[in-house]
Amino acid sequence: MPICRIRSISTVDARFPLAPGEGTDSVHTRSEYCMAVTVLATDCRTKGTGIALTLGDGNRIVCDAIELLAKPITGMDIETLMSNFGAMSRRLADDPSLRWLGPHKGVVHLALASLTNACFDLWAKSRGVPLWKLLLDLSPTELVRILDLSYLEDVLTEDDAVAMLEQHLPSRAARHSILKSGYPGYDTSVGWLAYDDARVREFTLRSIDQGFRAFKLKVGSAEESRDLRRAGMLREAAGDAAMVMFDANQRWNLPDAKRMCAALAAFSPLWIEEPTHPDDAHAHAQLAHHIAPVRLAAGEHIANRVLFKNFFYYGSIHFVQADCTRLAGVSEFLTVSLLAKKFRLPIVPHVGDMGQIHQHLLLFNHIALDHEVNFLEHIPHLKDHFCVPAKVSGGVYQTPEEPGASTDMILSGNEVGK
Amino acid sequence: MPICRIRSISTVDARFPLAPGEGTDSVHTRSEYCMAVTVLATDCRTKGTGIALTLGDGNRIVCDAIELLAKPITGMDIETLMSNFGAMSRRLADDPSLRWLGPHKGVVHLALASLTNACFDLWAKSRGVPLWKLLLDLSPTELVRILDLSYLEDVLTEDDAVAMLEQHLPSRAARHSILKSGYPGYDTSVGWLAYDDARVREFTLRSIDQGFRAFKLKVGSAEESRDLRRAGMLREAAGDAAMVMFDANQRWNLPDAKRMCAALAAFSPLWIEEPTHPDDAHAHAQLAHHIAPVRLAAGEHIANRVLFKNFFYYGSIHFVQADCTRLAGVSEFLTVSLLAKKFRLPIVPHVGDMGQIHQHLLLFNHIALDHEVNFLEHIPHLKDHFCVPAKVSGGVYQTPEEPGASTDMILSGNEVGK
Repeated sequence: MPICRIRSISTVDARFPLAPGEGTDSVHTRSEYCMAVTVLATDCRTKGTGIALTLGDGNRIVCDAIELLAKPITGMDIETLMSNFGAMSRRLADDPSLRWLGPHKGVVHLALASLTNACFDLWAKSRGVPLWKLLLDLSPTELVRILDLSYLEDVLTEDDAVAMLEQHLPSRAARHSILKSGYPGYDTSVGWLAYDDARVREFTLRSIDQGFRAFKLKVGSAEESRDLRRAGMLREAAGDAAMVMFDANQRWNLPDAKRMCAALAAFSPLWIEEPTHPDDAHAHAQLAHHIAPVRLAAGEHIANRVLFKNFFYYGSIHFVQADCTRLAGVSEFLTVSLLAKKFRLPIVPHVGDMGQIHQHLLLFNHIALDHEVNFLEHIPHLKDHFCVPAKVSGGVYQTPEEPGASTDMILSGNEVGK
Repeated sequence: MPICRIRSISTVDARFPLAPGEGTDSVHTRSEYCMAVTVLATDCRTKGTGIALTLGDGNRIVCDAIELLAKPITGMDIETLMSNFGAMSRRLADDPSLRWLGPHKGVVHLALASLTNACFDLWAKSRGVPLWKLLLDLSPTELVRILDLSYLEDVLTEDDAVAMLEQHLPSRAARHSILKSGYPGYDTSVGWLAYDDARVREFTLRSIDQGFRAFKLKVGSAEESRDLRRAGMLREAAGDAAMVMFDANQRWNLPDAKRMCAALAAFSPLWIEEPTHPDDAHAHAQLAHHIAPVRLAAGEHIANRVLFKNFFYYGSIHFVQADCTRLAGVSEFLTVSLLAKKFRLPIVPHVGDMGQIHQHLLLFNHIALDHEVNFLEHIPHLKDHFCVPAKVSGGVYQTPEEPGASTDMILSGNEVGK
């Protein structure tokens, strides 16, 4: 492998105003997606780009945190760095002067996500392969060396992780068919909270025409009757065979959530998402018990592997919406994937990356860990800002073939990362 | 009450290098305390100052976040603001463009701490009373209106909170004696991790001479035998009647913590502090069960009231080390104090404020909520940087009498906030 050294690290505070109503939910009333973008300049032919989503003003702060965090990796050769990335991830996460600001959550953890994702992008590009193939080509031992499993020793040691990966090696070939078939997307963009009923119906019918069979609706309106009316309307427009999911974006407290989830059960959702505060494993567990057999999903705001472990131990959720732009990047996403497998829970990522990176990670999870593939969230609003946007045709995600993690962006007319 | 309007909000990135070894523990090897300082300029005679602790490079980022958060309170009259501060706290914590960066944790929450503390300081100064008196003079209803109890409705409603405060009104007078007697401090600065044995012994003996009867030792050394040797040495120097506490600063995973806590039990600690990851309510609960009757303390890194609620529900800790520079300031500290009372747990603050604000809050907790007073942590390293440092004589905290929250600082030779 030729040496590819990280020469310098810079950031871009990239902001994308959305059309009115797009992206709105019960706690986010503004329509702006932002990416804290890490760019790794190298002395080889390629660059690395990493992204983490934010929703506005704080994007600059995340970029500043990336630059503070990045010092230890400047000057390193990417192969050396990635040969033991788990140790580096832990070192960065536990920086003695920055750790106090988390630890392992908030602005600094988002910064670590963007930085980590840039490292994986550069690693895959430097080897000339898409991220999913890079990860599948690693031996179980090599794979576990990119993970930081600290604080999981009570349930998942390094030896456990290697054994899990080895266990599924013989059956991998049988799961390669997904590379040809692709897998379904589900459409989140039919049901933003500010959309009126006519638009939800129109977009749902259009989405069905495009091949989608699963749809998400934002709930948590100020008037509860509006949630129930919209839920009924979506179910009617989508038909009984479609999957529908309701997403409250943390709006309810536990008593409200018990009442609303019971009422929304009438519309047979596959899951109800983020019913209450994302730190509240206990409330989720109480709610899950109360509204069974209705199932719960959460993860876009579960900050790290330790909190996920708590949600898993306490039976708080049924669908694991890990996000590699909320967790510490690709590395901690894979850690949570292993952990979820141990608890026999499915991973259905939240796509803070607009699906660009997760389209790779879903393939890895299915082939290497035998994670069942339900589908992957699809949000197309930033499609035109990626150099190679995820290909979704007939409602199906197609396997990405270009080298890297699909995170190169077009910013101010320039292709950043190419 | 004369109108006192907040004219503008500025910040100071204040950094204080410590002497070698001071402040060191198992995860923080640098000796630097920093304060992200909020300064509220007004059109009346006084200013408000608020502080939040950090340990280095990220202090500037917290200051930047304060300036982003502060917009809605600029121009407000302090009495109007504080008459319903709970609603404002929730509004700031749920800012649609900043909420994504937490929510309710990390850099943005530290910023909210500093900003909130400045508001309480200004409020007390504008009424010409120390913070403890300001809080005691509020009616139960007025007090509850400075709190954001959202996401606690399953255990603590506003009505519950008012009732708790009313219940303890008749017996308040009997607890006023604490204002004259003061209450003990405990000395954290005898046992920083980088101190050698001779220094720990010397500082412990000096501290005993000064009147202290309770001492904390940092554990979580790379060599476990060093922890045990130092623990034995502290117990011997302090004597059997003294209280000693061991603090691992999150260093151990659960298996390590089980082994080390069992070994350290031989030295009869009052508590073992932060044995493992601060998000891991499950691991703390397992550990508490395993090492009973040894008791656990945590809180300096428990990010918000929702996580505290989880620790309380699951029986994860016995001593609640809430910190008004980690939580959303004085307001969320009081919320956690009410919640802890509901679960019959004692509050023993961690002093990210060096005890300046908590000396007031402990008096309020004892008189208004009948919280038992154990003692308050004492860390004197920044003493010379406060305009009116907490008075600790004979090992006893004396009641502060100056108006405000005791957070005015001397920075670059100027008295900021006076």
